[in-house]
Amino acid sequence: MKAKILAFGEVMMRLEAPNYRTVAQTRSLDFAFSGTSVNVLSGLSHLGYQTELMTTLPENNLGYAAASYIRSLGVGTDAVSFDGDYIGMYVLEKGFGHRGSEVTYSNRSESAFCQSLETNYSIEHLRTGTHIHFCGISLAINKQIREVTLRIAEEAKAQGLTVSFDCNFRPKLWKGGYKEARPVYERMLLVADYVSMTEKDAVSILGMQTTAVQRQEQVDALLPKVAQRYSISAIAGTIRETNASASTLQGFLVQDGRVDFSTVHTVAILDRIGSGDGFFSGFLAAIFEGKSSSDIVEWATAAGVLAHTTYGDSPVTTRRAIEKLQLNQHIDVER
Amino acid sequence: MKAKILAFGEVMMRLEAPNYRTVAQTRSLDFAFSGTSVNVLSGLSHLGYQTELMTTLPENNLGYAAASYIRSLGVGTDAVSFDGDYIGMYVLEKGFGHRGSEVTYSNRSESAFCQSLETNYSIEHLRTGTHIHFCGISLAINKQIREVTLRIAEEAKAQGLTVSFDCNFRPKLWKGGYKEARPVYERMLLVADYVSMTEKDAVSILGMQTTAVQRQEQVDALLPKVAQRYSISAIAGTIRETNASASTLQGFLVQDGRVDFSTVHTVAILDRIGSGDGFFSGFLAAIFEGKSSSDIVEWATAAGVLAHTTYGDSPVTTRRAIEKLQLNQHIDVER
Amino acid sequence: MKAKILAFGEVMMRLEAPNYRTVAQTRSLDFAFSGTSVNVLSGLSHLGYQTELMTTLPENNLGYAAASYIRSLGVGTDAVSFDGDYIGMYVLEKGFGHRGSEVTYSNRSESAFCQSLETNYSIEHLRTGTHIHFCGISLAINKQIREVTLRIAEEAKAQGLTVSFDCNFRPKLWKGGYKEARPVYERMLLVADYVSMTEKDAVSILGMQTTAVQRQEQVDALLPKVAQRYSISAIAGTIRETNASASTLQGFLVQDGRVDFSTVHTVAILDRIGSGDGFFSGFLAAIFEGKSSSDIVEWATAAGVLAHTTYGDSPVTTRRAIEKLQLNQHIDVER
Amino acid sequence: MKAKILAFGEVMMRLEAPNYRTVAQTRSLDFAFSGTSVNVLSGLSHLGYQTELMTTLPENNLGYAAASYIRSLGVGTDAVSFDGDYIGMYVLEKGFGHRGSEVTYSNRSESAFCQSLETNYSIEHLRTGTHIHFCGISLAINKQIREVTLRIAEEAKAQGLTVSFDCNFRPKLWKGGYKEARPVYERMLLVADYVSMTEKDAVSILGMQTTAVQRQEQVDALLPKVAQRYSISAIAGTIRETNASASTLQGFLVQDGRVDFSTVHTVAILDRIGSGDGFFSGFLAAIFEGKSSSDIVEWATAAGVLAHTTYGDSPVTTRRAIEKLQLNQHIDVER
Amino acid sequence: MKAKILAFGEVMMRLEAPNYRTVAQTRSLDFAFSGTSVNVLSGLSHLGYQTELMTTLPENNLGYAAASYIRSLGVGTDAVSFDGDYIGMYVLEKGFGHRGSEVTYSNRSESAFCQSLETNYSIEHLRTGTHIHFCGISLAINKQIREVTLRIAEEAKAQGLTVSFDCNFRPKLWKGGYKEARPVYERMLLVADYVSMTEKDAVSILGMQTTAVQRQEQVDALLPKVAQRYSISAIAGTIRETNASASTLQGFLVQDGRVDFSTVHTVAILDRIGSGDGFFSGFLAAIFEGKSSSDIVEWATAAGVLAHTTYGDSPVTTRRAIEKLQLNQHIDVER
Amino acid sequence: MKAKILAFGEVMMRLEAPNYRTVAQTRSLDFAFSGTSVNVLSGLSHLGYQTELMTTLPENNLGYAAASYIRSLGVGTDAVSFDGDYIGMYVLEKGFGHRGSEVTYSNRSESAFCQSLETNYSIEHLRTGTHIHFCGISLAINKQIREVTLRIAEEAKAQGLTVSFDCNFRPKLWKGGYKEARPVYERMLLVADYVSMTEKDAVSILGMQTTAVQRQEQVDALLPKVAQRYSISAIAGTIRETNASASTLQGFLVQDGRVDFSTVHTVAILDRIGSGDGFFSGFLAAIFEGKSSSDIVEWATAAGVLAHTTYGDSPVTTRRAIEKLQLNQHIDVER
Repeated sequence: MKAKILAFGEVMMRLEAPNYRTVAQTRSLDFAFSGTSVNVLSGLSHLGYQTELMTTLPENNLGYAAASYIRSLGVGTDAVSFDGDYIGMYVLEKGFGHRGSEVTYSNRSESAFCQSLETNYSIEHLRTGTHIHFCGISLAINKQIREVTLRIAEEAKAQGLTVSFDCNFRPKLWKGGYKEARPVYERMLLVADYVSMTEKDAVSILGMQTTAVQRQEQVDALLPKVAQRYSISAIAGTIRETNASASTLQGFLVQDGRVDFSTVHTVAILDRIGSGDGFFSGFLAAIFEGKSSSDIVEWATAAGVLAHTTYGDSPVTTRRAIEKLQLNQHIDVER
Repeated sequence: MKAKILAFGEVMMRLEAPNYRTVAQTRSLDFAFSGTSVNVLSGLSHLGYQTELMTTLPENNLGYAAASYIRSLGVGTDAVSFDGDYIGMYVLEKGFGHRGSEVTYSNRSESAFCQSLETNYSIEHLRTGTHIHFCGISLAINKQIREVTLRIAEEAKAQGLTVSFDCNFRPKLWKGGYKEARPVYERMLLVADYVSMTEKDAVSILGMQTTAVQRQEQVDALLPKVAQRYSISAIAGTIRETNASASTLQGFLVQDGRVDFSTVHTVAILDRIGSGDGFFSGFLAAIFEGKSSSDIVEWATAAGVLAHTTYGDSPVTTRRAIEKLQLNQHIDVER
Repeated sequence: MKAKILAFGEVMMRLEAPNYRTVAQTRSLDFAFSGTSVNVLSGLSHLGYQTELMTTLPENNLGYAAASYIRSLGVGTDAVSFDGDYIGMYVLEKGFGHRGSEVTYSNRSESAFCQSLETNYSIEHLRTGTHIHFCGISLAINKQIREVTLRIAEEAKAQGLTVSFDCNFRPKLWKGGYKEARPVYERMLLVADYVSMTEKDAVSILGMQTTAVQRQEQVDALLPKVAQRYSISAIAGTIRETNASASTLQGFLVQDGRVDFSTVHTVAILDRIGSGDGFFSGFLAAIFEGKSSSDIVEWATAAGVLAHTTYGDSPVTTRRAIEKLQLNQHIDVER
Repeated sequence: MKAKILAFGEVMMRLEAPNYRTVAQTRSLDFAFSGTSVNVLSGLSHLGYQTELMTTLPENNLGYAAASYIRSLGVGTDAVSFDGDYIGMYVLEKGFGHRGSEVTYSNRSESAFCQSLETNYSIEHLRTGTHIHFCGISLAINKQIREVTLRIAEEAKAQGLTVSFDCNFRPKLWKGGYKEARPVYERMLLVADYVSMTEKDAVSILGMQTTAVQRQEQVDALLPKVAQRYSISAIAGTIRETNASASTLQGFLVQDGRVDFSTVHTVAILDRIGSGDGFFSGFLAAIFEGKSSSDIVEWATAAGVLAHTTYGDSPVTTRRAIEKLQLNQHIDVER
Repeated sequence: MKAKILAFGEVMMRLEAPNYRTVAQTRSLDFAFSGTSVNVLSGLSHLGYQTELMTTLPENNLGYAAASYIRSLGVGTDAVSFDGDYIGMYVLEKGFGHRGSEVTYSNRSESAFCQSLETNYSIEHLRTGTHIHFCGISLAINKQIREVTLRIAEEAKAQGLTVSFDCNFRPKLWKGGYKEARPVYERMLLVADYVSMTEKDAVSILGMQTTAVQRQEQVDALLPKVAQRYSISAIAGTIRETNASASTLQGFLVQDGRVDFSTVHTVAILDRIGSGDGFFSGFLAAIFEGKSSSDIVEWATAAGVLAHTTYGDSPVTTRRAIEKLQLNQHIDVER
Repeated sequence: MKAKILAFGEVMMRLEAPNYRTVAQTRSLDFAFSGTSVNVLSGLSHLGYQTELMTTLPENNLGYAAASYIRSLGVGTDAVSFDGDYIGMYVLEKGFGHRGSEVTYSNRSESAFCQSLETNYSIEHLRTGTHIHFCGISLAINKQIREVTLRIAEEAKAQGLTVSFDCNFRPKLWKGGYKEARPVYERMLLVADYVSMTEKDAVSILGMQTTAVQRQEQVDALLPKVAQRYSISAIAGTIRETNASASTLQGFLVQDGRVDFSTVHTVAILDRIGSGDGFFSGFLAAIFEGKSSSDIVEWATAAGVLAHTTYGDSPVTTRRAIEKLQLNQHIDVER
């Protein structure tokens, strides 16, 4: 039987002005429900894994609609707690060319998830899984959720689940800055087996230093040390470069004291948000399936590239699409 | 020169599942920006008045989009304060037949308006107007806004503006119930010249009593006393009856110690929300234009009927449409 | 071989605010191309007739799109002349309940059709048909088109085609009023075999008088005289009554000196415009097929009733739908 | 722990022309995935039950999209077999007023479900449930599916599950007519505990006779006998009457040798298809919860009435909505 | 008088997830009706030719909607046979960047066209044309249609029409592979005057060999031999190259024993499907108009390039657009 | 207090086929209201200026909808005259890649603006402004509007406002060609302080000559002379180059006898129309704020680049977006 994968984190309602318009230029918004935890599980679900989301949704029509949407992604909602009144929302105005995308949040701090307590979550659900994923945003929201997150992670670890963690540092949410964040992150890193992180996180959050200039060299210099210091099995991340004419994406994998870099992909961008979660769900699947380090990094990067080409935050990439991309077989029309 | 009409109150973003679907049955939402104050001014603007809204909108793309929308209704935004982070939102799932409409709110208490201070509003703007409108919801939100609302009303009165007030009691927002509300309402009623109110408000909020059973008789028994007690020039309201096959609407006007009732209209309902604001904007216009009491109540009721037949919360009824309805000239197609 | 039916008249672009909104409340408009001549031919095409439209469309992308649309209705465009620069347009804001529909025209007088000359139309096309339809609007636009219309009608008659004429009096277009219109109408009525007309037209346009009060009695009193005076084979029309709760439709047929009335139908109205053309296309089909007078009037009225229930100006009612309505077999879902 | 409810049957893709248009009048179609089995489970899921669908979907993007949609309704897809190439489709052109709805099918006989074998279904899944639902359409499609359906029903019964059956006779699918159907239906009725059926089914399928004329009397005369003959615990059904101005719905329940009729409801119809499944899911829930016979029939009928007022084939009615309808509390807007 | 051009082949309903979404990510699908035969005729119609489609459509609302759509493209439907029950459908999920498009078919083998017989087609229609087009897909579907196709082609040839043939090999439809296909293709090639084919077809279907490596050299080596062997007047085809940053298109023409290559165009791709039909309709028009070989290949390639930039399968490119592209005058906005 | 900026010119209704379709390929059109004057004011409004439009709109629902739309852009409509019957319209079919956009006009010459008289405009409105903008199209329409335009410009100048003028030569509107246009343009240039113009205008309209070949050299050679001859404070314009793979944009500024060129930007094009107005509104804002010549040209060009990336004709670019582009900080997502 396949491993059941859990994730803990907030679900938000994404409202989006269609066709590259601004909100003032439209009278309707497309919407979806997403979040790092949903996204990673959606990615794994579309790769064939059974998944289950631990979160709190409001006990109203928006909460029920969110659960319906999450199930449509193939993610289980049996571990969802319905409690509280609000769901966090954000409005996306997608950019075009030199015009960047803009995101406007509604009040998230009062959301059902951000107000949830440890009693909203049942440890029973941990028993059904072999792995659980967490995200740095859960550590940033407020002290209550931070503590709930860390305790669930530690409990999961104690019960024998492997743990993954996406560093995902959101400066606006940490009033105390990196100084406040570092001990919290360190506590989580000590629990985590698989981590999404870049060399920039090592410098800013963990306070590490390097004289290397090029990003690949910085990865080499810093991240194996991070893995060793916090007993992390594998760290993965991406390096993206954007210039006027194109974007490129290169993945890296830190495992067993060494770094593997993927081939560099040129990426066409349909929907930028959630592409990191696509990368990480590909990474986790490759890890779970015991692939070689070079296969892991290529597979994860292919998943990340494809996440840029699919609508919405939540990855829906199939195993076959990843394999075709790796074989460079992305023919025009499959029929 | 025509009178410039002001209103003070919150603007909310209305998100609506299209075609009588639920949120879980759709992937896009129509939206608009509305609120009692916007609606009354929109109604007056479409009847030819210059209007100006006093409110606070968040200083972000949603706030700017709201201002853009309000201007499109013909309502001025020079008196809008841009401050704070959030706009109140609600999601409407329109009912059909025996299935009632359902409304789900996002967190409104942290909205830019609900967090606004007296310093967000400039008394200078009062000088540009001859009349200002308020709504009971502003009194309910929190003590800060309640005080701001009352002070602006009293200041406006002191400066010689006439004041109107829509009782609009929202039980969920008054934690202390009618007991908490009564003194607040009484303070506002003492300021108000024109009031939207029903016999039910007189009983529940003001604690008045009558042995009359029929609604029209209760209006007769109670509302002239209210007008006298609080020195209100005119009180207006509607009586709506709904049965399986149809809804009817009848307006009433309390003025000079007597009550006038309008003809009873059968109403076809396209969009229920905001129809009371349509009635009241028709009432105010008729008052401003010095119509006779029977003309006032007929004109206001016609405006209310038509507000049921137009899309959206904010009335867009024209003078000509009201006149045609009164002449029973609603021909199929005007061409 | 089935009769080929022609019609002469203007094609307009109908732009429509969706979902009962006003233009100011939307950012997109649905559109179609229609006109009395297109509508009557569309109705006949859906009843199985070969049809051909004589008109002038602008020689640009809007004209080509109009021709594409007309063909999609099953109406031939081989007799369309592409010349001139503009197409007439109108914007429809559909009403709801007591709020009437409103139509705003763009400048029609400069349209390709309204500027067209007799040289735009080839008499060769008349040879392919057995019947041709005209509309009173073509007589109203300007003197040039009026003369073109009358000459084509007279030429068609001379060539042995039967001729139908829809009186369709548009007061705004006749600067000289009924006085200017009467001789023009009389010239056309003398050519016409089948006419769409009501007792009101007989009074206003033809100046006839009656002491009868009820509409059915007026029809009886006036229209057989009209048929006799102008040697018209058959006159057909409808009587519609609208009150607060419902609309009814009753057809009548004047033939051989007597009047037949149809059963009275209650009509649900989805789209009012073009329902008269639906009636008349049903009438013509029944005439062409040699039905009895009572069958003609019932068939035509059923076609008219169904035209109220279909989207758009142009009827798309099938023979089977008419027959089902006559048998009262409009079951919920046919599957 | 709540009962887990299973259902066995086909899932179809419903494509629908929007806004009462015909297919020829639009360039886009709304779609959903439905079927009697999905609908009954969706109804039960929205009333709080755990549900699981047994069906076969094609192993392609349409099959995966169907599963995603079904999960969004709260129905489990762990028992879905992905096999075969096609999904049955139908196109709905919704009627309006006197114009009936029309349904056009694509080829269903080659669908993954219609071609599925007993080996596509695992008896293991039966062990997870307490009840299973079947539909008469599964008996009609072809002999292979008919036999699969009956065997699963009999196996479920043998394992201790209760069984429900919706007679749902589709004349077009039974080439051998009622004669072919009767023994098949009888075999199923002997297994079934709860049956959806009307007096018409008793006459046409089972060949019973009565001299009663009125429908309620026919129900009284025939259905208790059916229940007794086939050892059915409860039979439920509805009587709908439609005239020009309104439709009414009345439910009935046959239990313990007697018949209960519900109050008669006037129904406003937004979406007719699937309303019978709404009724039956309400009936099953009431049965499962041990309600009294009069409560069962009222509850089921309220669920059926509300299913007419909700978009789509699949009921999404909540417990609270049913209770509000029963209390006649369908207020305009709930906020 | 201009030549009337016929084509024989299947019409399918194309359903398409909008905005680069997957089916699971949307609730509506755009649709159109297309097919190689429709597409080639649509291309020719927009270049000014009279066209007529020979096909069989189902005798239901989908078949009628298909005919309506085809007429809207300017293609005649007098030679369409309405018979049978189903229309072939496919669902397109358009790719983006490295994500390829995916096509899911519904059951095509039972479609009205695939089940049609020689008796569905009247030889009378051949008399009205000067040229007729066929497609390799018609040869692949089943033996019955294969024979019908070949007989109509041979009959047309016998009656003096010129014949064109698009090789269009679909491996999934040929159970017997190239071995089964070769004699069938050879029979058709012996009839055909104008053929769409590449060097790959010569190798795989006809079993020819070459030592040349580069594609242009292979064309040179193989296709003049094919033209000679089967007495084909002209063969045309395209060479497309795709890399990460762009696609290029180059056309070739084999005529009078020699090969002409067009300039190489960089192509922006809006809609890939049907672009080959755009190329071939441009080729046929150039042939019909007696252009020089270099003009033919440039004109055809320009038509193919523009077909990539237009929505839908069916080309709608105008003569002026082709001429502007050849002059490199594709200015931003024409006004 | 900020300067109030006026503009005089026509407002047109832009109807647009969505998703790169042609009109014949769609059944709905998106729309907006725009025009050079609206666009320049919209650009300035979004940069923080108070603006007021002087124009004439028809006194009907389209005119009111246009005013509503214009206000939504932040542009004042107090100086709008409602008179006449029609609004100019154009239909845009957006191109893709090598397929150019196409624009089809409705009859503009009879529009409310084109038929307006000097009496439609009140000089009082000039008193409220410090600057007024005009466009070459107003000079081209007809002699009446030409004279009105020139007189308002001269009157504004006399009252101390600065004047800007966009040369914007539309060949189709000038029946007398450059010869007719030159004296009219010269009269306007003598009034204008700030002018949008290129070296091509200097050659064609003003008849100037240069032996320079490169466009930048021609600008250098000609435009300082133009500035001197007509006493223009500053002339600004852009040089755009388009090849198969990309477009570039470079701005220039002629001031104090010298020319500044901006950096060359690669532009991604979402909506081409109105990008020149985006450039010019950025130019005017920079002028009003007294920026240095190199800052003016960079700021204006950045505004022009961003106008290519925003939906619609009317610029909605914010100050912050311009600054971010100049710092090359167009990050993927701002959150």
